Amino acid sequence: MKTLIVVAHPKIDDSSSQAFFKAGAKLVEDATWHPLVEPFDVLEERALLMEADRIILQFPLYWYQAPSSLPKWLNEVWSVDFASHLQGKQLAVVLTLGRQLQDYQPGAAVGVTLSDLLSPYVALANTCNMTWVPPLIVAQFARMTEAQRQSLLIRYQQFLSLPDTHFQTISQWWVDQLSKRPEATQIAETLKERQAHLASLRQSVKEAQGDE
Amino acid sequence: MKTLIVVAHPKIDDSSSQAFFKAGAKLVEDATWHPLVEPFDVLEERALLMEADRIILQFPLYWYQAPSSLPKWLNEVWSVDFASHLQGKQLAVVLTLGRQLQDYQPGAAVGVTLSDLLSPYVALANTCNMTWVPPLIVAQFARMTEAQRQSLLIRYQQFLSLPDTHFQTISQWWVDQLSKRPEATQIAETLKERQAHLASLRQSVKEAQGDE
Repeated sequence: MKTLIVVAHPKIDDSSSQAFFKAGAKLVEDATWHPLVEPFDVLEERALLMEADRIILQFPLYWYQAPSSLPKWLNEVWSVDFASHLQGKQLAVVLTLGRQLQDYQPGAAVGVTLSDLLSPYVALANTCNMTWVPPLIVAQFARMTEAQRQSLLIRYQQFLSLPDTHFQTISQWWVDQLSKRPEATQIAETLKERQAHLASLRQSVKEAQGDE
Repeated sequence: MKTLIVVAHPKIDDSSSQAFFKAGAKLVEDATWHPLVEPFDVLEERALLMEADRIILQFPLYWYQAPSSLPKWLNEVWSVDFASHLQGKQLAVVLTLGRQLQDYQPGAAVGVTLSDLLSPYVALANTCNMTWVPPLIVAQFARMTEAQRQSLLIRYQQFLSLPDTHFQTISQWWVDQLSKRPEATQIAETLKERQAHLASLRQSVKEAQGDE
């Protein structure tokens, strides 16, 4: 699966979270890190979009909206005619928040939900006949512990590379990752055996249900 | 009440709806028509905002978001520190749509609601301690009949000048408008008499309730 990461951030070089994601994306085959830089070369931008299977829009919220480069890019690059070439592709968002998650609720400080705020992108997916992938939300990156960041790195890499979030897909991802490291092949083997065991248990359950 | 109309539209001179609104705003005392033109003079923009009692953000939707000049303006002009000067003011949106209203429903073409799409502005009002005024939504201006446009012109002028939408406020607006025209003073007089009659009926009802 080819993934295009369209990053909209006016001060991307000063952003520790974007530097973190950039390093994470580098480790993923078939993921292209693409920060928006004006002016846009419309044909080049469109070529990148056409190549991708999953298009990720990645941005922080400024006053509850994406930075202006994103609507500008959408308006210039993503014309209604061109959008027909994108149907069937996946659309996803990686959102970074300075505020804590619980502020985005009715009655809380912001008072609206993240689903509300992401609705323009859901509508974009709907009208372009793209598949909307549930977003990856990262709140208060600056306050994360080292362990939380390690966990986020894994979630981000999976978000870039996995077609879905089924248990078997994630489990297979771990086998692939661990097999690449000589010191972890034993763990990968054990995991593989357990996958096989689980698959055979599933088969038995299925047969038992069939007998009923 | 002083009203500032912040218009975000990349091709404002080609827009028949914005030309229509501009003409309407001219007839309203204390309403300032202010199209966004980059680059922004931050101090001038802030002075305009400080003077206003009601701040109206007026824009079309491009891919379900405001044109990029609006988030850019918010980001440059409307800093978190400055926002404290805006508390207590009213915030409103005038939204123009190319699509028909019924497209903005779950299951319809766009699949999300206009409340969803306007949520960034509700959140802005919430966190700046401003009063959110229900928006004026104008769908498919180009297809409106002359009668519909006349009705819209009135609704727009009321939206710019009335502090609320109570029946009495709107009724008084009509008296004021008609009194300005020599040919309509008789109608204004009749309306005034009926207002007085209604007020006395209200008083009677109140007293009757007090007797219970």
